[in-house]
Amino acid sequence: MAGSINRQILLKSRPQGAPSLDNFELIETPIPEPGEGEVLMRILYLSLDPYMRGRMSAAKSYAKPAAIGQPMVGGTVGEVVKSRNPKYAVGDLVLGYGGWQEYALSNGAGLRKLDPAAAPVSTALGVLGMPGMTAYVGLTEIGGPKPGETVVVAAASGAVGSVVGQIAKIKGCRAVGIAGGAEKCRFVAGELSFDACVDHRAPDFAKQLEAACPNGIDVYFENVGGAVQQTVWPLLNDFARIPVCGLIAQYNATIPMPGPDMFSVLRKRLLLRGFIVSDFAAKQGDSLRDVGDWVRSGRLKYREDIVDGLEQAPAAFLGLLQGKNFGKLLVRMAT
Amino acid sequence: MAGSINRQILLKSRPQGAPSLDNFELIETPIPEPGEGEVLMRILYLSLDPYMRGRMSAAKSYAKPAAIGQPMVGGTVGEVVKSRNPKYAVGDLVLGYGGWQEYALSNGAGLRKLDPAAAPVSTALGVLGMPGMTAYVGLTEIGGPKPGETVVVAAASGAVGSVVGQIAKIKGCRAVGIAGGAEKCRFVAGELSFDACVDHRAPDFAKQLEAACPNGIDVYFENVGGAVQQTVWPLLNDFARIPVCGLIAQYNATIPMPGPDMFSVLRKRLLLRGFIVSDFAAKQGDSLRDVGDWVRSGRLKYREDIVDGLEQAPAAFLGLLQGKNFGKLLVRMAT
Repeated sequence: MAGSINRQILLKSRPQGAPSLDNFELIETPIPEPGEGEVLMRILYLSLDPYMRGRMSAAKSYAKPAAIGQPMVGGTVGEVVKSRNPKYAVGDLVLGYGGWQEYALSNGAGLRKLDPAAAPVSTALGVLGMPGMTAYVGLTEIGGPKPGETVVVAAASGAVGSVVGQIAKIKGCRAVGIAGGAEKCRFVAGELSFDACVDHRAPDFAKQLEAACPNGIDVYFENVGGAVQQTVWPLLNDFARIPVCGLIAQYNATIPMPGPDMFSVLRKRLLLRGFIVSDFAAKQGDSLRDVGDWVRSGRLKYREDIVDGLEQAPAAFLGLLQGKNFGKLLVRMAT
Repeated sequence: MAGSINRQILLKSRPQGAPSLDNFELIETPIPEPGEGEVLMRILYLSLDPYMRGRMSAAKSYAKPAAIGQPMVGGTVGEVVKSRNPKYAVGDLVLGYGGWQEYALSNGAGLRKLDPAAAPVSTALGVLGMPGMTAYVGLTEIGGPKPGETVVVAAASGAVGSVVGQIAKIKGCRAVGIAGGAEKCRFVAGELSFDACVDHRAPDFAKQLEAACPNGIDVYFENVGGAVQQTVWPLLNDFARIPVCGLIAQYNATIPMPGPDMFSVLRKRLLLRGFIVSDFAAKQGDSLRDVGDWVRSGRLKYREDIVDGLEQAPAAFLGLLQGKNFGKLLVRMAT
């Protein structure tokens, strides 16, 4: 422990287009003292996720923007080091929303105790946390995959995509991933056992994707938008379902990108539905149970991409937006 | 009756962009004789509908294109004038798919007997037929309107739109129509009792629409696409539903028009779903019962725009694509 200093990364300014390191500022402040009913957490892992790009903007969205001059928001796993809340004892490991800093206060709202014997605590930020649940509810509640159907997901080696494809396999579907680069594709088709994975950087990407989907596409789990979406669109079957989970290829666009062809929506009777995980809060129990079972039995694998030290968070996050991570991106605190 | 002559309007050529009269050809052929199991119908009413623009194209869609050199396809109400099918007697009035001609054969498949005492038989092509059912299933099955919500529909004086808004009112919603011109708007807000109707040709259309939807838009029943869609999009509320029924403003586009902003789909958790009425065949009974009750009790009104004579069909159809009709467009046969 670093004594009395809490390092924080603040949102310094809002990006126009692609964010840069200049949008963040690392500062040192005193570690705060918990007030009545509060706990102080020492953060062990900070989750870095694409949605944070949205929080950097002032645009209206489903959640408030992060405030300028305040620590960037983010999910965390921490250890309770001081407690004035009777529900939490020193030493408890807790999932929370501590943000980009080494210590955080919480009044207990939204905290969840973790059992380190049940699973590595970092998984509460990934496969057994928000990203895994996002994959689960989006695929099962909106995608409605039926055995024999073809499910396509981009960012297939990432925290959400990797779970989408593996659940699709468990549901009896053909799972086809899209990822950036040969190494990720090998991992997706090998370690994760997707039926195929296509490199969207390949010059003949469209042709390869078509070959990987001989029966067309019944569920396209949308993580990326942009050029990949345009390539997928003509391959969609009648009555295909498109859970819209993310559009990472468009997050830095300063002018709106054209949306997909609406004629196809009409002619093919497509269903598109945007969602965020909290829309399906009632399914959290199902998700934790099912995904937990699959992880424990080895049917569902996950990969973490861990960087060490809070000071690495901005660069790691910028890399995430460019697809440079390989697996669920986490910052492990060096304190 | 015109003796032994059957006049037909053939699809002569496929349009590039907007269709013209040159794409059609009126010919005279002998009235055919029914074979074993067939009936001969003298057509009383031919329905003209926007979907026919799709049939004129060779593009893959949910139904086969109309064939060059064959009568254009279309729904009809006819009288059985000869029968070699034991289920139908001479004099029966039947709903069928006779196409753009004065006489048509049928083997009975898809025919439905009509009771002229129950409702004017022309309504089987409109409010009590395909367009009315389209409005009913799209709004209730996809739109899911809840009391107090705002439902917006374009082409609001037309066969589908007029029913959408009136059902929305019956369901306790605020119904806002969009139509072309002051006369149609007066009809929609007056005779049809929508809460408001906005003229999309008005220079301050966007401002007027916003004022007509003080609580935003919860259901946008999509009939038109194009510029109207772009104006509606920013007014959609979180969790809005968009049944995609038609895109008449885009049917003549020779290059794909950009689709709506996908960011809104994600951020607002929108649901878009394309459909055609036959996707909900199981709801036909509910639709006929409910809409029939509402029409008989005077809660649901309809307007027909009738042109006389088969030779008028091509020009009337071209006018329909330009919004020149005022109510459900029908051709009454002059034979």
